[in-house]
Amino acid sequence: MTNSKHTPNPALDEITLSTEKIFDGKVIKLQVDTVQLPNGETSKREIIRHNGAVAVLAIHNDKMIVVEQFRQPLGRTQVEIPAGKLEIGEDPKDAIARELKEETGYEAKELKLLFSFYTSPGFADELIHLYLADELIEGEAKLDEDEFLEMSTITLEQAYEQIANQQISDAKTIMAVQAWQLIKLGGKLGQ
Amino acid sequence: MTNSKHTPNPALDEITLSTEKIFDGKVIKLQVDTVQLPNGETSKREIIRHNGAVAVLAIHNDKMIVVEQFRQPLGRTQVEIPAGKLEIGEDPKDAIARELKEETGYEAKELKLLFSFYTSPGFADELIHLYLADELIEGEAKLDEDEFLEMSTITLEQAYEQIANQQISDAKTIMAVQAWQLIKLGGKLGQ
Repeated sequence: MTNSKHTPNPALDEITLSTEKIFDGKVIKLQVDTVQLPNGETSKREIIRHNGAVAVLAIHNDKMIVVEQFRQPLGRTQVEIPAGKLEIGEDPKDAIARELKEETGYEAKELKLLFSFYTSPGFADELIHLYLADELIEGEAKLDEDEFLEMSTITLEQAYEQIANQQISDAKTIMAVQAWQLIKLGGKLGQ
Repeated sequence: MTNSKHTPNPALDEITLSTEKIFDGKVIKLQVDTVQLPNGETSKREIIRHNGAVAVLAIHNDKMIVVEQFRQPLGRTQVEIPAGKLEIGEDPKDAIARELKEETGYEAKELKLLFSFYTSPGFADELIHLYLADELIEGEAKLDEDEFLEMSTITLEQAYEQIANQQISDAKTIMAVQAWQLIKLGGKLGQ
Protein backbone atom coordinates (compact mmCIF):
# COMPACT_ATOMS: atom_id res chain seq x y z
CA MET A 1 0.00 0.00 0.00
CA THR A 2 1.40 3.40 -0.96
CA ASN A 3 0.76 6.23 1.43
CA SER A 4 0.13 9.28 -0.72
CA LYS A 5 0.32 11.46 2.39
CA HIS A 6 3.96 10.58 3.07
CA THR A 7 6.43 13.36 2.37
CA PRO A 8 10.20 12.86 2.56
CA ASN A 9 11.75 13.69 5.93
CA PRO A 10 15.58 13.98 5.88
CA ALA A 11 15.70 13.73 9.69
CA LEU A 12 14.19 10.23 9.57
CA ASP A 13 14.48 8.75 6.07
CA GLU A 14 16.92 5.99 5.14
CA ILE A 15 18.37 5.70 1.65
CA THR A 16 18.80 2.27 0.09
CA LEU A 17 22.39 1.78 -1.09
CA SER A 18 22.20 -1.88 -2.15
CA THR A 19 20.07 -5.01 -1.87
CA GLU A 20 21.32 -8.56 -1.44
CA LYS A 21 18.76 -11.25 -2.23
CA ILE A 22 19.14 -14.22 0.13
CA PHE A 23 16.10 -16.47 -0.31
CA ASP A 24 13.13 -16.79 -2.67
CA GLY A 25 10.51 -19.16 -1.26
CA LYS A 26 6.87 -20.08 -1.83
CA VAL A 27 5.58 -17.74 0.89
CA ILE A 28 8.39 -15.33 1.73
CA LYS A 29 11.49 -13.76 0.22
CA LEU A 30 14.44 -12.56 2.28
CA GLN A 31 16.80 -9.73 1.35
CA VAL A 32 19.39 -7.70 3.23
CA ASP A 33 19.50 -4.01 2.34
CA THR A 34 22.39 -1.70 3.07
CA VAL A 35 20.98 1.71 3.94
CA GLN A 36 22.33 5.17 4.68
CA LEU A 37 21.01 6.60 7.94
CA PRO A 38 20.09 10.29 8.39
CA ASN A 39 23.51 10.88 10.05
CA GLY A 40 25.36 9.50 7.01
CA GLU A 41 26.35 6.19 8.65
CA THR A 42 25.40 2.92 6.96
CA SER A 43 23.46 0.02 8.44
CA LYS A 44 21.94 -3.33 7.38
CA ARG A 45 18.21 -4.08 7.23
CA GLU A 46 16.96 -7.69 7.10
CA ILE A 47 13.70 -7.64 5.16
CA ILE A 48 10.98 -10.21 4.46
CA ARG A 49 8.87 -9.71 1.34
CA HIS A 50 5.37 -11.23 1.44
CA ASN A 51 2.39 -10.91 -0.95
CA GLY A 52 0.04 -9.95 1.84
CA ALA A 53 -3.01 -11.66 3.25
CA VAL A 54 -6.71 -11.32 3.95
CA ALA A 55 -8.76 -12.11 7.06
CA VAL A 56 -12.36 -11.74 8.16
CA LEU A 57 -14.33 -11.03 11.33
CA ALA A 58 -17.36 -13.15 10.37
CA ILE A 59 -20.35 -12.98 12.73
CA HIS A 60 -23.36 -15.31 12.53
CA ASN A 61 -26.12 -15.40 15.20
CA ASP A 62 -23.91 -13.28 17.49
CA LYS A 63 -21.03 -15.76 17.28
CA MET A 64 -17.65 -15.32 15.64
CA ILE A 65 -16.48 -17.94 13.16
CA VAL A 66 -13.01 -19.27 13.93
CA VAL A 67 -10.76 -22.05 12.67
CA GLU A 68 -8.19 -24.05 14.62
CA GLN A 69 -5.07 -25.03 12.71
CA PHE A 70 -1.48 -26.09 13.32
CA ARG A 71 1.13 -23.34 13.10
CA GLN A 72 4.58 -24.78 12.56
CA PRO A 73 6.45 -21.61 13.72
CA LEU A 74 4.68 -22.01 17.08
CA GLY A 75 4.75 -25.82 17.19
CA ARG A 76 1.08 -25.99 18.17
CA THR A 77 -2.45 -25.27 16.99
CA GLN A 78 -4.05 -21.84 17.33
CA VAL A 79 -7.59 -20.56 17.03
CA GLU A 80 -7.76 -17.74 14.46
CA ILE A 81 -10.26 -15.93 12.30
CA PRO A 82 -10.49 -17.28 8.72
CA ALA A 83 -7.62 -15.96 6.62
CA GLY A 84 -5.47 -16.68 3.62
CA LYS A 85 -2.53 -15.47 1.60
CA LEU A 86 -3.01 -13.18 -1.38
CA GLU A 87 -1.78 -14.20 -4.79
CA ILE A 88 -0.01 -11.48 -6.78
CA GLY A 89 -2.58 -9.20 -8.40
CA GLU A 90 -5.53 -10.82 -6.62
CA ASP A 91 -8.35 -8.59 -5.35
CA PRO A 92 -8.39 -8.80 -1.52
CA LYS A 93 -12.19 -8.86 -1.33
CA ASP A 94 -12.44 -11.75 -3.82
CA ALA A 95 -9.68 -13.57 -1.91
CA ILE A 96 -11.36 -13.34 1.49
CA ALA A 97 -14.76 -14.31 0.06
CA ARG A 98 -13.15 -17.44 -1.42
CA GLU A 99 -11.16 -18.30 1.74
CA LEU A 100 -14.23 -17.89 3.97
CA LYS A 101 -16.28 -20.17 1.70
CA GLU A 102 -13.54 -22.80 1.41
CA GLU A 103 -12.57 -22.89 5.09
CA THR A 104 -16.00 -22.54 6.70
CA GLY A 105 -18.73 -22.92 4.05
CA TYR A 106 -20.14 -19.48 4.86
CA GLU A 107 -20.83 -16.93 2.15
CA ALA A 108 -20.72 -13.25 3.01
CA LYS A 109 -23.55 -11.07 1.67
CA GLU A 110 -21.31 -8.04 2.17
CA LEU A 111 -17.64 -7.52 3.07
CA LYS A 112 -16.58 -4.25 4.68
CA LEU A 113 -12.90 -3.35 5.10
CA LEU A 114 -12.07 -2.65 8.76
CA PHE A 115 -8.29 -2.14 8.59
CA SER A 116 -5.31 -2.82 6.37
CA PHE A 117 -2.29 -3.28 8.63
CA TYR A 118 1.35 -4.30 8.51
CA THR A 119 1.98 -7.23 10.84
CA SER A 120 5.62 -6.48 11.59
CA PRO A 121 6.90 -3.34 9.86
CA GLY A 122 10.36 -3.58 11.42
CA PHE A 123 11.35 -6.51 9.23
CA ALA A 124 8.44 -7.48 6.94
CA ASP A 125 6.15 -5.86 4.36
CA GLU A 126 3.27 -8.29 4.96
CA LEU A 127 -0.02 -6.33 4.83
CA ILE A 128 -3.25 -7.94 6.08
CA HIS A 129 -6.63 -6.66 4.92
CA LEU A 130 -9.15 -7.34 7.70
CA TYR A 131 -12.83 -7.41 6.67
CA LEU A 132 -16.13 -7.53 8.54
CA ALA A 133 -18.90 -9.87 7.37
CA ASP A 134 -21.98 -9.80 9.57
CA GLU A 135 -24.56 -11.21 7.16
CA LEU A 136 -23.72 -14.78 6.27
CA ILE A 137 -25.31 -17.68 4.39
CA GLU A 138 -24.41 -21.16 5.67
CA GLY A 139 -22.98 -23.77 3.32
CA GLU A 140 -20.48 -26.60 3.00
CA ALA A 141 -16.74 -26.08 3.57
CA LYS A 142 -14.46 -27.29 0.76
CA LEU A 143 -10.94 -27.62 2.13
CA ASP A 144 -7.96 -28.15 -0.10
CA GLU A 145 -6.42 -31.63 0.14
CA ASP A 146 -3.46 -30.31 2.11
CA GLU A 147 -5.49 -28.01 4.38
CA PHE A 148 -6.33 -29.24 7.87
CA LEU A 149 -8.47 -27.10 10.10
CA GLU A 150 -11.46 -27.32 12.41
CA MET A 151 -14.15 -24.66 12.37
CA SER A 152 -16.15 -23.52 15.35
CA THR A 153 -18.26 -20.56 16.42
CA ILE A 154 -17.67 -18.71 19.68
CA THR A 155 -19.31 -15.96 21.71
CA LEU A 156 -17.47 -12.75 22.61
CA GLU A 157 -17.07 -14.08 26.16
CA GLN A 158 -15.56 -17.33 24.84
CA ALA A 159 -13.24 -15.31 22.60
CA TYR A 160 -11.84 -13.49 25.65
CA GLU A 161 -11.50 -16.83 27.49
CA GLN A 162 -9.50 -18.17 24.54
CA ILE A 163 -7.34 -15.03 24.58
CA ALA A 164 -6.75 -15.59 28.31
CA ASN A 165 -5.67 -19.22 27.81
CA GLN A 166 -3.67 -18.38 24.64
CA GLN A 167 -5.68 -20.53 22.23
CA ILE A 168 -6.20 -17.17 20.54
CA SER A 169 -2.86 -15.36 20.45
CA ASP A 170 -2.33 -13.72 17.08
CA ALA A 171 -2.60 -10.06 16.10
CA LYS A 172 -5.36 -10.26 13.48
CA THR A 173 -7.69 -12.35 15.70
CA ILE A 174 -7.22 -10.20 18.82
CA MET A 175 -7.76 -7.12 16.66
CA ALA A 176 -10.97 -8.68 15.28
CA VAL A 177 -12.24 -9.53 18.79
CA GLN A 178 -11.61 -5.92 19.88
CA ALA A 179 -13.43 -4.63 16.79
CA TRP A 180 -16.37 -6.93 17.54
CA GLN A 181 -16.60 -5.59 21.11
CA LEU A 182 -16.41 -2.01 19.78
CA ILE A 183 -19.30 -2.76 17.40
CA LYS A 184 -21.37 -4.02 20.35
CA LEU A 185 -20.50 -0.93 22.41
CA GLY A 186 -21.28 1.44 19.54
CA GLY A 187 -17.64 2.53 19.31
CA LYS A 188 -15.64 3.78 16.37
CA LEU A 189 -14.17 1.27 13.93
CA GLY A 190 -11.39 1.62 11.39
CA GLN A 191 -10.50 3.67 8.43
CA MET B 1 5.22 -18.65 24.93
CA THR B 2 4.16 -22.21 25.70
CA ASN B 3 0.47 -22.91 25.82
CA SER B 4 -0.02 -25.41 28.61
CA LYS B 5 -3.61 -25.94 27.48
CA HIS B 6 -2.57 -27.35 24.10
CA THR B 7 -3.13 -31.06 23.70
CA PRO B 8 -1.97 -33.01 20.64
CA ASN B 9 -4.56 -33.32 17.88
CA PRO B 10 -3.67 -35.93 15.20
CA ALA B 11 -6.29 -34.45 12.85
CA LEU B 12 -4.41 -31.13 12.75
CA ASP B 13 -0.84 -31.55 13.99
CA GLU B 14 2.20 -31.50 11.74
CA ILE B 15 5.34 -33.47 12.58
CA THR B 16 8.75 -31.92 11.89
CA LEU B 17 10.87 -34.26 9.76
CA SER B 18 13.88 -32.00 9.17
CA THR B 19 15.07 -28.40 9.44
CA GLU B 20 17.30 -26.58 6.98
CA LYS B 21 18.89 -23.40 8.33
CA ILE B 22 19.12 -20.73 5.63
CA PHE B 23 20.06 -17.44 7.30
CA ASP B 24 21.21 -16.22 10.71
CA GLY B 25 20.96 -12.44 10.97
CA LYS B 26 20.98 -9.73 13.62
CA VAL B 27 17.19 -9.56 13.87
CA ILE B 28 15.80 -12.68 12.21
CA LYS B 29 16.75 -16.24 11.36
CA LEU B 30 15.26 -18.17 8.45
CA GLN B 31 14.79 -21.93 8.28
CA VAL B 32 12.82 -24.27 6.04
CA ASP B 33 11.20 -27.20 7.82
CA THR B 34 9.98 -30.35 6.10
CA VAL B 35 6.83 -31.50 7.89
CA GLN B 36 4.49 -34.48 7.74
CA LEU B 37 0.86 -33.45 7.35
CA PRO B 38 -2.03 -35.26 9.10
CA ASN B 39 -2.72 -37.20 5.85
CA GLY B 40 0.87 -38.51 5.73
CA GLU B 41 2.00 -36.24 2.88
CA THR B 42 5.03 -34.01 3.34
CA SER B 43 5.24 -30.26 2.87
CA LYS B 44 7.71 -27.38 3.38
CA ARG B 45 7.31 -24.58 5.92
CA GLU B 46 9.33 -21.35 5.61
CA ILE B 47 9.88 -20.06 9.14
CA ILE B 48 11.28 -16.83 10.59
CA ARG B 49 12.72 -17.00 14.12
CA HIS B 50 12.66 -13.72 16.08
CA ASN B 51 13.43 -12.96 19.75
CA GLY B 52 10.15 -11.13 20.23
CA ALA B 53 9.38 -7.53 21.03
CA VAL B 54 7.68 -5.20 23.48
CA ALA B 55 5.36 -2.23 22.92
CA VAL B 56 3.37 0.14 25.08
CA LEU B 57 0.09 2.05 24.98
CA ALA B 58 1.31 5.06 26.97
CA ILE B 59 -1.32 7.66 27.89
CA HIS B 60 -0.52 11.09 29.36
CA ASN B 61 -3.12 13.84 29.82
CA ASP B 62 -5.56 11.84 27.68
CA LYS B 63 -3.10 11.67 24.77
CA MET B 64 -1.27 8.65 23.37
CA ILE B 65 2.49 8.84 22.98
CA VAL B 66 3.66 7.86 19.50
CA VAL B 67 6.91 7.90 17.57
CA GLU B 68 7.41 8.39 13.84
CA GLN B 69 10.25 6.44 12.28
CA PHE B 70 11.40 5.16 8.92
CA ARG B 71 10.54 1.54 8.13
CA GLN B 72 12.74 0.19 5.37
CA PRO B 73 10.41 -2.76 4.49
CA LEU B 74 7.70 -0.16 3.70
CA GLY B 75 10.03 2.47 2.23
CA ARG B 76 8.45 5.23 4.29
CA THR B 77 7.94 6.51 7.83
CA GLN B 78 5.13 5.27 10.04
CA VAL B 79 3.62 6.49 13.30
CA GLU B 80 3.70 3.72 15.90
CA ILE B 81 3.50 3.24 19.64
CA PRO B 82 6.91 3.02 21.37
CA ALA B 83 8.38 -0.45 20.92
CA GLY B 84 11.61 -2.39 20.81
CA LYS B 85 13.11 -5.79 20.24
CA LEU B 86 13.75 -8.17 23.13
CA GLU B 87 17.22 -9.46 23.81
CA ILE B 88 17.44 -13.17 24.64
CA GLY B 89 16.52 -13.73 28.28
CA GLU B 90 15.46 -10.12 28.85
CA ASP B 91 12.40 -9.43 30.99
CA PRO B 92 9.71 -7.88 28.76
CA LYS B 93 8.60 -5.39 31.43
CA ASP B 94 12.16 -4.15 31.97
CA ALA B 95 12.63 -3.91 28.21
CA ILE B 96 9.55 -1.77 27.56
CA ALA B 97 10.29 0.49 30.53
CA ARG B 98 13.76 1.11 29.06
CA GLU B 99 12.50 1.61 25.47
CA LEU B 100 9.80 4.05 26.60
CA LYS B 101 12.35 6.09 28.57
CA GLU B 102 14.93 6.09 25.77
CA GLU B 103 12.54 6.87 22.92
CA THR B 104 10.24 9.37 24.65
CA GLY B 105 11.70 10.35 28.02
CA TYR B 106 8.59 9.18 29.85
CA GLU B 107 8.80 6.86 32.84
CA ALA B 108 5.90 4.55 33.61
CA LYS B 109 4.77 4.32 37.25
CA GLU B 110 3.12 1.02 36.42
CA LEU B 111 3.10 -1.30 33.40
CA LYS B 112 0.15 -3.63 32.88
CA LEU B 113 0.25 -6.41 30.28
CA LEU B 114 -2.66 -6.09 27.82
CA PHE B 115 -1.87 -8.87 25.32
CA SER B 116 0.97 -11.06 24.15
CA PHE B 117 0.40 -11.81 20.48
CA TYR B 118 2.08 -13.42 17.51
CA THR B 119 2.36 -10.96 14.65
CA SER B 120 2.30 -13.47 11.81
CA PRO B 121 1.94 -17.08 13.00
CA GLY B 122 1.85 -18.51 9.48
CA PHE B 123 5.56 -17.88 8.94
CA ALA B 124 7.07 -16.24 12.05
CA ASP B 125 7.36 -16.87 15.78
CA GLU B 126 7.67 -13.16 16.69
CA LEU B 127 5.69 -12.51 19.87
CA ILE B 128 4.92 -8.93 20.95
CA HIS B 129 4.09 -8.11 24.57
CA LEU B 130 1.82 -5.06 24.58
CA TYR B 131 1.63 -3.08 27.84
CA LEU B 132 -0.53 -0.26 29.16
CA ALA B 133 1.07 2.67 31.02
CA ASP B 134 -1.42 5.34 32.04
CA GLU B 135 0.56 7.05 34.81
CA LEU B 136 3.67 8.67 33.40
CA ILE B 137 6.43 10.97 34.57
CA GLU B 138 7.91 13.30 31.93
CA GLY B 139 11.64 13.35 31.26
CA GLU B 140 14.30 13.62 28.58
CA ALA B 141 14.54 11.13 25.71
CA LYS B 142 17.96 9.51 25.20
CA LEU B 143 18.09 8.05 21.72
CA ASP B 144 20.86 5.73 20.60
CA GLU B 145 23.26 7.26 18.08
CA ASP B 146 21.77 5.20 15.25
CA GLU B 147 18.13 5.72 16.28
CA PHE B 148 16.11 8.37 14.45
CA LEU B 149 12.57 9.06 15.53
CA GLU B 150 10.21 11.91 16.33
CA MET B 151 7.88 11.73 19.29
CA SER B 152 4.45 13.28 19.45
CA THR B 153 1.26 12.94 21.48
CA ILE B 154 -2.15 12.49 19.85
CA THR B 155 -5.79 12.33 20.90
CA LEU B 156 -7.98 9.31 20.20
CA GLU B 157 -9.65 11.26 17.38
CA GLN B 158 -6.25 12.08 15.85
CA ALA B 159 -5.26 8.42 16.16
CA TYR B 160 -8.27 7.40 14.04
CA GLU B 161 -7.45 10.16 11.53
CA GLN B 162 -3.92 8.77 11.27
CA ILE B 163 -5.32 5.27 10.79
CA ALA B 164 -7.57 6.63 8.02
CA ASN B 165 -4.66 8.29 6.20
CA GLN B 166 -2.32 5.31 6.85
CA GLN B 167 0.26 7.18 8.92
CA ILE B 168 -0.73 4.57 11.50
CA SER B 169 -0.92 1.19 9.76
CA ASP B 170 0.67 -1.50 11.89
CA ALA B 171 -0.96 -4.23 13.98
CA LYS B 172 0.36 -3.29 17.42
CA THR B 173 -0.56 0.40 17.10
CA ILE B 174 -4.08 -0.24 15.78
CA MET B 175 -4.56 -2.83 18.55
CA ALA B 176 -3.42 -0.23 21.11
CA VAL B 177 -5.79 2.42 19.72
CA GLN B 178 -8.69 -0.05 19.95
CA ALA B 179 -7.69 -0.94 23.52
CA TRP B 180 -7.60 2.75 24.41
CA GLN B 181 -11.10 3.26 23.02
CA LEU B 182 -12.31 0.18 24.95
CA ILE B 183 -10.86 1.65 28.16
CA LYS B 184 -12.78 4.88 27.53
CA LEU B 185 -16.00 2.95 26.83
CA GLY B 186 -15.58 0.75 29.91
CA GLY B 187 -15.14 -2.38 27.77
CA LYS B 188 -13.20 -5.54 28.43
CA LEU B 189 -9.46 -5.59 27.81
CA GLY B 190 -7.05 -8.48 27.40
CA GLN B 191 -5.94 -11.55 29.19
